[in-house]
Amino acid sequence: MTLLIVVQGAGENWTAEPWRQRFAARLKSMPVALWPQDTPAPESVRYVAVWKPPPGLLGTYPNLQVIFNLGAGVDALVADATLPDVPLVRVAVSDLTKRMTEYVVLHVLMHHRQQRRLDAAQRAKKWDTPDQRAASALRVGIMGLGELGRDSAEVLVRLGFQVAGWSRSKREVPGVDCYAGMDQLPAFLARTDILVVLVPLTPETKGILNASSFRKLARDGVLGGPVVINAGRGGLQVEDDIVAALNDGTLGAVTLDVFNTEPLPPEHPLWSHPKATITPHNAADSDPEAVSDYVVAQIEAYERGEPLQNVVDRARGY
Amino acid sequence: MTLLIVVQGAGENWTAEPWRQRFAARLKSMPVALWPQDTPAPESVRYVAVWKPPPGLLGTYPNLQVIFNLGAGVDALVADATLPDVPLVRVAVSDLTKRMTEYVVLHVLMHHRQQRRLDAAQRAKKWDTPDQRAASALRVGIMGLGELGRDSAEVLVRLGFQVAGWSRSKREVPGVDCYAGMDQLPAFLARTDILVVLVPLTPETKGILNASSFRKLARDGVLGGPVVINAGRGGLQVEDDIVAALNDGTLGAVTLDVFNTEPLPPEHPLWSHPKATITPHNAADSDPEAVSDYVVAQIEAYERGEPLQNVVDRARGY
Repeated sequence: MTLLIVVQGAGENWTAEPWRQRFAARLKSMPVALWPQDTPAPESVRYVAVWKPPPGLLGTYPNLQVIFNLGAGVDALVADATLPDVPLVRVAVSDLTKRMTEYVVLHVLMHHRQQRRLDAAQRAKKWDTPDQRAASALRVGIMGLGELGRDSAEVLVRLGFQVAGWSRSKREVPGVDCYAGMDQLPAFLARTDILVVLVPLTPETKGILNASSFRKLARDGVLGGPVVINAGRGGLQVEDDIVAALNDGTLGAVTLDVFNTEPLPPEHPLWSHPKATITPHNAADSDPEAVSDYVVAQIEAYERGEPLQNVVDRARGY
Repeated sequence: MTLLIVVQGAGENWTAEPWRQRFAARLKSMPVALWPQDTPAPESVRYVAVWKPPPGLLGTYPNLQVIFNLGAGVDALVADATLPDVPLVRVAVSDLTKRMTEYVVLHVLMHHRQQRRLDAAQRAKKWDTPDQRAASALRVGIMGLGELGRDSAEVLVRLGFQVAGWSRSKREVPGVDCYAGMDQLPAFLARTDILVVLVPLTPETKGILNASSFRKLARDGVLGGPVVINAGRGGLQVEDDIVAALNDGTLGAVTLDVFNTEPLPPEHPLWSHPKATITPHNAADSDPEAVSDYVVAQIEAYERGEPLQNVVDRARGY
């Protein structure tokens, strides 16, 4: 039996060969093969570790037991109707959670502390001291209260922000006012000055960041209009609506790490919008060493007859 | 008896008249006067609430009992040899601590997450994904472990950074490797990638951020050279040494909130240095309402015969 690695996708973080080396160094009980250059017998492939595999490929391995996804989002895999009906495991390593919390805290603080205004003042060599409210005057709303959202919320509460969260089903998070379900989404948006988006991309959440949602955000806050920070998935947002909302003042500013097309094309108006901060889908690059440790530990546990952790619920989509 | 308010100093946060209104609204037991327009009998002045009072002025009130400083730093007051020998109380409100923690966390994260590189990539419309280490790879050193330093340290530890602290006398802070005294300063600097400066300005710390200190900082870190964040006092730093260290690579970057001359003059080279982030001494503007509450609560307690809190040790200088 074999672990087959199938890694595609743009970006230097996804070169395939280092993944083979990481897994080969850790997994002593079975051979590690790298698609497409290695050609193990299809019936020998028991596990696959994948990032953006070609649709249809995984169905060609008749004895496949488990699919491990090497990145955080499983939306593309779940959308593949030909995916074999075996457990699909998502990555859940604390390193990724910590990195996302860094990103969320950094960008909430940049908006709260008016860093872009201070940057402009520095360029103008101007000693500009804006009125600065306390964190307790600002309402942050976190859309998505999984492991990532809960960890970010904890630090934001510690910093003194008023934090609420929204999730598909009801959650309890200490110090966080929790909303749930589509029924409560308008009330959640209406009390939110800074919206942090960490929900998975599913048919229910696709395009959820649109003109209608933006109009529901709080407009009585201490910032110059509501702010959206999307560190989830590009498919959650309607980019034309974002540009229009920034231009007509419906939104005060945005920080976007993800886009419908990545890399974001050079001609896209968001690159140069004065109210947009653009980052290159690096909010939470997970450490490949930590991800490799995680997958190998799960394979070894599964071989001992123990249950898999963090198996995706395909009906739910995450 | 009277509370006299003496407020001078540049910057719109220090207009005097609003202070009179805040104190008059809170202090029911005695009249509130504002120097220089009000002229209470000198012997009636029992308390003063001050920011940068003219040297010699406070010595003209023979029955003065307590001096309340309205800002965080008492260095200028303590340096005034004519200051009457009565208790000098410094401001210590949790609002100020929280704001300083926001500032420290924001600017540590900006360096850690390479935000200036990402800003440059955005201006160039370039999808640049730098290698990004985990917070645990970065050593933050906090110079000054008073209330401000300890609170910042706690959040930085929570975010996963390796945090050490240095103070005049030995402190214990959970999760923080504590150094103390001038003897241990070189060892503290040698393990520090990002130096956060929150010490009071005293004869011992004046000019402590100089070429010699910068050369002692860690040079084997994951950043492009050591970073200094000064949110303490301008007098702690030798600005010519900072510019030279940025230019010759001894320092990788700086974030400065305070300067020897404030406002920083437009012709100063730090304004336009590509490795410098300049903020206008607003790291921790304290909420005047909170400061007024604090001073009035102390006056009322003192009138009841209770001890004063946060009295400055003049020999130590803070």
